[in-house]
Amino acid sequence: MNRNEIEKLLTGIRDGSKSVEEVLDVLHDFPFTDLGFAKIDNHREIRTGFPEIVYCAGKTTEQVIGIFRLMAEKKNNVIGTRAGREMFEAVSGVFSRAVYYPEARIISIPLHEMKKPDTAIAVITAGTSDIPVAEEAAVTAELLGNDVVRIYDAGVAGIHRLVDKLPEIRKCRVIIVIAGMEGALASVVGGLVSKPVIAVPTSVGYGASFGGISALLAMLTSCSSGVTVVNIDNGFGAGFSASMINQMK
Amino acid sequence: MNRNEIEKLLTGIRDGSKSVEEVLDVLHDFPFTDLGFAKIDNHREIRTGFPEIVYCAGKTTEQVIGIFRLMAEKKNNVIGTRAGREMFEAVSGVFSRAVYYPEARIISIPLHEMKKPDTAIAVITAGTSDIPVAEEAAVTAELLGNDVVRIYDAGVAGIHRLVDKLPEIRKCRVIIVIAGMEGALASVVGGLVSKPVIAVPTSVGYGASFGGISALLAMLTSCSSGVTVVNIDNGFGAGFSASMINQMK
Amino acid sequence: MNRNEIEKLLTGIRDGSKSVEEVLDVLHDFPFTDLGFAKIDNHREIRTGFPEIVYCAGKTTEQVIGIFRLMAEKKNNVIGTRAGREMFEAVSGVFSRAVYYPEARIISIPLHEMKKPDTAIAVITAGTSDIPVAEEAAVTAELLGNDVVRIYDAGVAGIHRLVDKLPEIRKCRVIIVIAGMEGALASVVGGLVSKPVIAVPTSVGYGASFGGISALLAMLTSCSSGVTVVNIDNGFGAGFSASMINQMK
Amino acid sequence: MNRNEIEKLLTGIRDGSKSVEEVLDVLHDFPFTDLGFAKIDNHREIRTGFPEIVYCAGKTTEQVIGIFRLMAEKKNNVIGTRAGREMFEAVSGVFSRAVYYPEARIISIPLHEMKKPDTAIAVITAGTSDIPVAEEAAVTAELLGNDVVRIYDAGVAGIHRLVDKLPEIRKCRVIIVIAGMEGALASVVGGLVSKPVIAVPTSVGYGASFGGISALLAMLTSCSSGVTVVNIDNGFGAGFSASMINQMK
Amino acid sequence: MNRNEIEKLLTGIRDGSKSVEEVLDVLHDFPFTDLGFAKIDNHREIRTGFPEIVYCAGKTTEQVIGIFRLMAEKKNNVIGTRAGREMFEAVSGVFSRAVYYPEARIISIPLHEMKKPDTAIAVITAGTSDIPVAEEAAVTAELLGNDVVRIYDAGVAGIHRLVDKLPEIRKCRVIIVIAGMEGALASVVGGLVSKPVIAVPTSVGYGASFGGISALLAMLTSCSSGVTVVNIDNGFGAGFSASMINQMK
Amino acid sequence: MNRNEIEKLLTGIRDGSKSVEEVLDVLHDFPFTDLGFAKIDNHREIRTGFPEIVYCAGKTTEQVIGIFRLMAEKKNNVIGTRAGREMFEAVSGVFSRAVYYPEARIISIPLHEMKKPDTAIAVITAGTSDIPVAEEAAVTAELLGNDVVRIYDAGVAGIHRLVDKLPEIRKCRVIIVIAGMEGALASVVGGLVSKPVIAVPTSVGYGASFGGISALLAMLTSCSSGVTVVNIDNGFGAGFSASMINQMK
Amino acid sequence: MNRNEIEKLLTGIRDGSKSVEEVLDVLHDFPFTDLGFAKIDNHREIRTGFPEIVYCAGKTTEQVIGIFRLMAEKKNNVIGTRAGREMFEAVSGVFSRAVYYPEARIISIPLHEMKKPDTAIAVITAGTSDIPVAEEAAVTAELLGNDVVRIYDAGVAGIHRLVDKLPEIRKCRVIIVIAGMEGALASVVGGLVSKPVIAVPTSVGYGASFGGISALLAMLTSCSSGVTVVNIDNGFGAGFSASMINQMK
Amino acid sequence: MNRNEIEKLLTGIRDGSKSVEEVLDVLHDFPFTDLGFAKIDNHREIRTGFPEIVYCAGKTTEQVIGIFRLMAEKKNNVIGTRAGREMFEAVSGVFSRAVYYPEARIISIPLHEMKKPDTAIAVITAGTSDIPVAEEAAVTAELLGNDVVRIYDAGVAGIHRLVDKLPEIRKCRVIIVIAGMEGALASVVGGLVSKPVIAVPTSVGYGASFGGISALLAMLTSCSSGVTVVNIDNGFGAGFSASMINQMK
Repeated sequence: MNRNEIEKLLTGIRDGSKSVEEVLDVLHDFPFTDLGFAKIDNHREIRTGFPEIVYCAGKTTEQVIGIFRLMAEKKNNVIGTRAGREMFEAVSGVFSRAVYYPEARIISIPLHEMKKPDTAIAVITAGTSDIPVAEEAAVTAELLGNDVVRIYDAGVAGIHRLVDKLPEIRKCRVIIVIAGMEGALASVVGGLVSKPVIAVPTSVGYGASFGGISALLAMLTSCSSGVTVVNIDNGFGAGFSASMINQMK
Repeated sequence: MNRNEIEKLLTGIRDGSKSVEEVLDVLHDFPFTDLGFAKIDNHREIRTGFPEIVYCAGKTTEQVIGIFRLMAEKKNNVIGTRAGREMFEAVSGVFSRAVYYPEARIISIPLHEMKKPDTAIAVITAGTSDIPVAEEAAVTAELLGNDVVRIYDAGVAGIHRLVDKLPEIRKCRVIIVIAGMEGALASVVGGLVSKPVIAVPTSVGYGASFGGISALLAMLTSCSSGVTVVNIDNGFGAGFSASMINQMK
Repeated sequence: MNRNEIEKLLTGIRDGSKSVEEVLDVLHDFPFTDLGFAKIDNHREIRTGFPEIVYCAGKTTEQVIGIFRLMAEKKNNVIGTRAGREMFEAVSGVFSRAVYYPEARIISIPLHEMKKPDTAIAVITAGTSDIPVAEEAAVTAELLGNDVVRIYDAGVAGIHRLVDKLPEIRKCRVIIVIAGMEGALASVVGGLVSKPVIAVPTSVGYGASFGGISALLAMLTSCSSGVTVVNIDNGFGAGFSASMINQMK
Repeated sequence: MNRNEIEKLLTGIRDGSKSVEEVLDVLHDFPFTDLGFAKIDNHREIRTGFPEIVYCAGKTTEQVIGIFRLMAEKKNNVIGTRAGREMFEAVSGVFSRAVYYPEARIISIPLHEMKKPDTAIAVITAGTSDIPVAEEAAVTAELLGNDVVRIYDAGVAGIHRLVDKLPEIRKCRVIIVIAGMEGALASVVGGLVSKPVIAVPTSVGYGASFGGISALLAMLTSCSSGVTVVNIDNGFGAGFSASMINQMK
Repeated sequence: MNRNEIEKLLTGIRDGSKSVEEVLDVLHDFPFTDLGFAKIDNHREIRTGFPEIVYCAGKTTEQVIGIFRLMAEKKNNVIGTRAGREMFEAVSGVFSRAVYYPEARIISIPLHEMKKPDTAIAVITAGTSDIPVAEEAAVTAELLGNDVVRIYDAGVAGIHRLVDKLPEIRKCRVIIVIAGMEGALASVVGGLVSKPVIAVPTSVGYGASFGGISALLAMLTSCSSGVTVVNIDNGFGAGFSASMINQMK
Repeated sequence: MNRNEIEKLLTGIRDGSKSVEEVLDVLHDFPFTDLGFAKIDNHREIRTGFPEIVYCAGKTTEQVIGIFRLMAEKKNNVIGTRAGREMFEAVSGVFSRAVYYPEARIISIPLHEMKKPDTAIAVITAGTSDIPVAEEAAVTAELLGNDVVRIYDAGVAGIHRLVDKLPEIRKCRVIIVIAGMEGALASVVGGLVSKPVIAVPTSVGYGASFGGISALLAMLTSCSSGVTVVNIDNGFGAGFSASMINQMK
Repeated sequence: MNRNEIEKLLTGIRDGSKSVEEVLDVLHDFPFTDLGFAKIDNHREIRTGFPEIVYCAGKTTEQVIGIFRLMAEKKNNVIGTRAGREMFEAVSGVFSRAVYYPEARIISIPLHEMKKPDTAIAVITAGTSDIPVAEEAAVTAELLGNDVVRIYDAGVAGIHRLVDKLPEIRKCRVIIVIAGMEGALASVVGGLVSKPVIAVPTSVGYGASFGGISALLAMLTSCSSGVTVVNIDNGFGAGFSASMINQMK
Repeated sequence: MNRNEIEKLLTGIRDGSKSVEEVLDVLHDFPFTDLGFAKIDNHREIRTGFPEIVYCAGKTTEQVIGIFRLMAEKKNNVIGTRAGREMFEAVSGVFSRAVYYPEARIISIPLHEMKKPDTAIAVITAGTSDIPVAEEAAVTAELLGNDVVRIYDAGVAGIHRLVDKLPEIRKCRVIIVIAGMEGALASVVGGLVSKPVIAVPTSVGYGASFGGISALLAMLTSCSSGVTVVNIDNGFGAGFSASMINQMK
């Protein structure tokens, strides 16, 4: 509700077409998220057509379906992350258009096409075990309306595999680097390419990998500029941030 | 050295204007950083006019001045981070144009003007003690050619201070959030604004702040989407990444 | 045994109704918990009518039933926390009045009504996955004789949901804030409301949540005054402390 | 601004005493903190007479004096915590009524008397080295208008010292327990007294004390109910929370 | 082989009853463990009648039975710790005298009586969940030939339970204190009793207990003198050390 | 106050030499530490002649001198640990008999001779840098009335140095092993000698020693039986516990 | 592609046997790994006959078989580590020569004999539970063409077992020491033998072993020179590095 | 003392030139380190001419000079590590041939020339701040008789600097990689070169470098084979191990 709309309401009082009580109730009840005055809004609502996202882990099937139903009513695309196959099966019983990405563990309910920017997002992994996290990032980015270039298993132990792909990587606007173990790939990519790098440590590894802590610390202390980091295994977060940057005008 | 240049060399052999030996030596000796074929280059070199950046901590005054001299010869602007006042004084004895930003602990040797994008970067801190890190981020971003909107001391303990500034923040293209202690500000900003947020944990605090670890963990686990994180107190890294995003075309 | 009772004993010696030996034995043997002199007592015993509480995890069904039996004999209400459904089924075979709260994982054996104070306790969660811990807190508080206002899924990623509920929250006397991930909600609530806030970090989250450590650290380092913290997932402890404060006279 | 006030404004439009523009501007400009509609306010402002508190560590003398000046103008008592003697000396040059509590490292500028509740707060320490943190808690509580009972050096290695003081402790409404090393005192007090216990771990100790972590963990995992915890060395936080509880009606 | 035996060998050379070669071979080949000269021996062998102890976890049933067989041949009592019931069943198929202590998870093969010292070892636990570790300590101590006084569930949340037992505890020569959570019991016992206290942290607890780390740290930093600590859940180690001290002459 | 004394009081009532009121007051007021009945006493008091010990770190000179004065009045030997030379100089101005052990950082005020047991305590260090902690242990043990055998710089990198000393070590009744870095010496000694071993990790080392944590963990997880552990650098604690064991009858 | 080959190409242009385009394409397309000029190669390819190694954990059966097929085509021996029996069964369905080492969890496809150096590698474990990691190291070393001397269960708690084997150990060229718990064996072996020692911490142990961290820290801080360390449980890494050293000329 | 020498002694008895007592005493007293029979020796002694090494940190000047004196008497070269300039000045007052390497913080007393192997050791650092640790490694290796190739400031942020040096690196027999921050250089070098890599994490960095832990973890979890790791900042250890490998025959 912008100044104009409120002005209209107030004018309604003046010209008698609206009672004070009526206006008072509108002002009191209008959803907080529309309250331009209050300087707070629920930013997601204002970009119609943009998908709604639900983190499914730790929610019951009933809760997830309930939330999906609310969202689908707004005619927005819906994305559910961290969803197991059973969750998908329950969801697809209700939403026949639901699609499942098993490696990414994402459920999508596409309700309309999305306009894509010209530039793409690169998703690079160090090893094959990092692929599930990479798929979460890549599918998220795709469902948010981006082209994705996947370059998997290009870790620094065989750095020529990465170097071979540099021209392709350099054409992308944002780069997501996904690595477990020592996470060195983020620094190497950051040193080779002048694009924002979003690093995702994965919990892949054993022993002193400590469930992703080693990769996380390595990425945070990267000596290459332009590298920022998200939580361990947070493919979704990387995909979302990369999409935000890729879709900038 | 691109395909065209190599083609010219090879043609030179064919038409006899160049000997095989000559060409062999050129191929062998050309600097690695120009080797288009080899798929590796030193990306920083290709963006002439972009400042060169030196991390001064742990380097001697002699080392820093030596590096600055090399850089200044290329006619690029030079930025030295984590530099104490003594470092600056030694540097300014050699480079009369050197400027010092004491809170940011940055030395700059501006050699030519930079073209600025239309959009700005917001730098928000939770408290006044976070200002030195914020200044490192802000001055870095400015020296890299960006306008910066500073909003300091807007922590969640008095959230109205942040809310008051939301319209101003929303006009920026990228947002840097800087906070120590529990680092909650990153999540709150991320929840209120649909822009990429780069979160910088600071070592401000005591006890269970553990020199910034609490803020770091909080930022990494932020439940707001669009938040990425850099190292504790890494104002420079945040400023650099934000600049990269802000200057995207 | 208070001064009066001991005085009676001593008078018994003086008037010959009691031998020195007899009194000596009584003084020596009376149960420690009644020893007013010794300045130590078992405080729980003195507040008749107040429920007895049993932490069931790590105890066998036999142990739990045995303890319940002892307690029920004192005619006090009994609360068993961290109890699985099988535990409840065994217990309800013995105590037909036993009630089970599955989300809170609490068994209650209500033996008499409790008098409630006029003021209520607010239980706020950041997400839906925090609800089991919240229910442990809420049910504990209710069984200890308090009214509880539940506000679930009001995390800082969508802060308007919290703001909508502020008037309701401010009417409560104590506030329990329950959050996993980055735990920012405690700081935000602490900054908005002038009431004691008891923060409960939950083990909800993944990666750098480290089973609740991130939320715990964030809550401990909260820059909002008036926030105190209990152990990770310790809904019971929060409910108990909140009840203690809410029932103050 | 409550519904009544807004109603009055709207009525003003209807009866022509106010123009639409006028009302629009009021609605737009009234300070956020008064915005009843928006459900957010700055709660500290509403309790006139209550002291304003400044965390001085990490602020320059100029910053602190500037903040004090602003606060003193509101005629409120001012408390500055974590302030060294030099800070005090600079402050007392400007505010002649400034008082310094060297052990507590607190500066106070008392501008008017505070009304005290009938009940007191107990501040108990395990050792003599915990006294500075205890004084921060005690002085904070006193400056916020509470009576404080100090019981120092009553650690569990000589538990009779604590037991001797139990009657005195039990008369208090809230208990602050301050201990470094293994922090066992919080559990022991919590087991002996039916009052809310706020535990403050201190960084006192060496080796496996790890700067207060051992005491912190012990207090968080206390098997005594009714114990909540604040940050390591956070005497102020304990004093503030205890005051909040002690002054409840 | 002691000096006397070697002397005898050398004398043999002198009187011609032994050749130099013969003696050389004996010196070279005698088992290391008997080499008095070499100043290293296998001390366990020299105390005939003392039980042999096998840590069964991580060993296969075949390995355990094999080791037991070797030991039983020496006619010593055998103790197997960390043994599940299946392990026992396999063992008892071979050794009909094998006895199983299910709570302690210990297998014993008693081959002869042990002489007991006059003094006893106290084993005290904070809670009922600590009993398995306590039983490992107690059964170990008993099988090594000590009387054990068990005092279970005497934690500091209800300190009168401990105080009631002090006379009994003070009669023992060594005290084992077993506690999870905040481990405060070790400090309290150490403060009340002038006997060596061996503290065993247990992994009992949740959240910030961190699998026994909190109790471990608390015990290591105990402000009571005379407390030493063994590994988390190491009931065996405590029982063994206590036995060593209790059997001193 | 023992049963006899109370009996005398009660008899006094019977024979009229004492009024009930008088006896009541005595029972109420006698110091807790003498309360035999109450089952709690301050055990240190009962062993007259045994030194009193003061941990000086974190105490002011005034506090330390005050405590020493109280103790000296009881005619007991006094030991002050963690005392710098300045502390000693202040103390020796008041107590002319005060002695300083600079490496051990211990002040002693010997007021009478102590009876020594026949057996000794071995104090073994891995390196020369561990000597200050060793001296704290050794001097503590000596001042508590024990003979001490010092074996320094016998770490496992040159294990023959240890083996050379085994006969001497085996004659001792208790062994204190002091080591930083990887702390392997405790396991090796524990494997070679059938005596109680008290292991003291030291903060000696760099990098992954983490201020003694590596040695601490190694000692706690020692695979040699009979090893118990005290806090990092806690020479005093080891000396005290060893003395307790060595003086057992 | 070496200088000679490129020279030949260039000469081809000169003498007309090759067109410029042809040469340009060759230069552009030759595999990166052969690009002598570019100073980067894929070193593993150049040592024909040396086994290819695949880390199987986290890969699907299909992925592993696919990779094996590629490798087998090059006629190299293949080693698959961290492979369960099911993986082996799938693999052996395709490769009839596949061999499984169950304790080492290694699959081998031997395609030709390997030439062995004269010297051997010693693999020593502290306990029997360390054997699986030891077998991974030993089998790796054997499959890479080395003789291995296995010495298992020679931990420092019974150091004579190690000393007995010293002559055998000293004949080896490299020594792998494998230990969990406190990891002291690495230091002891390093102190006794003048050969490179590669230490492998194992996750064997409980409590303060923290899944191998204690052993890892102990090995890193070993006071014996010549000890280097690999990741927890990384038998393969130790075997590979030892092989590299053992096969040096 | 070898078999021959003992044989001579025994023969002396037989032919009467030695008494039994005499031989007994020799056998008993000969230094452990020479006892070939006893299977333990002090290996360093046997390689005459090899330098003796003293870790100077935590030793007093007197201790260091005393140890140096003992060593110099054996006519061996002496190396003192972690020695400050003051230490050197004191030492050079006594040993006029003493040489100081200030960056390496090493004192050397060269008493005779060392024979060098044909192969060299490469020492590579990521940044200029890693140079002191690198110099400790390089000087150690040189003083132990090796040629060293220094390649400094070749971190992965500008990977071409490393690639330029690959031919030079590949000629070396062992490679030491020294890096702080994220330590990625070890993995990259390990992936490019088929030689044993000894990785040294340095404490260079800030924030989430945690004094070298991030680099340490990254190196331990390196996905490149052939990488082993030493303690943080342990240049000496790396130089020593590299020397051991380089001097293998």
